[in-house]
Amino acid sequence: MPRVIVDVMPKPEILDPQGKAVTGALKRLGYSGLSVRQGKRFEVEVEGEITDERLAQIREAADTLLANTTIEAYNVRVDK
Amino acid sequence: MPRVIVDVMPKPEILDPQGKAVTGALKRLGYSGLSVRQGKRFEVEVEGEITDERLAQIREAADTLLANTTIEAYNVRVDK
Repeated sequence: MPRVIVDVMPKPEILDPQGKAVTGALKRLGYSGLSVRQGKRFEVEVEGEITDERLAQIREAADTLLANTTIEAYNVRVDK
Repeated sequence: MPRVIVDVMPKPEILDPQGKAVTGALKRLGYSGLSVRQGKRFEVEVEGEITDERLAQIREAADTLLANTTIEAYNVRVDK
């Protein structure tokens, strides 16, 4: 089934407490020099073909439901 | 700064209640024919160059900290 990936990440200017926690945990475990930001990944399986209309619909869904656009940015792409 | 992406998704045979909730919400909002699975996306900024050793380290970190490998699968790749 054709698939669309929606990545949702905290905007660069927004604090990311989860990412900070992971970064700290990595450092304590001995993995230094790594800085992590944490977001969400949605794999969207699409019934039928992925048309431009379908993609626009998914972009709209990302904008209204999947991401909180006040604090998050999203990226929609077809998975090859 | 060079960047590595770690995607963590629930394994196919594992129930994904978040994804199910999103799928249901999309349907109620009029977006039908979409089935969603939800996972996590980590953007890892790496100090210095991304060597094979560095990548192996990040893979180890993904295995022990970022993913719960009983129920989740992960993918590590260099972001271009």
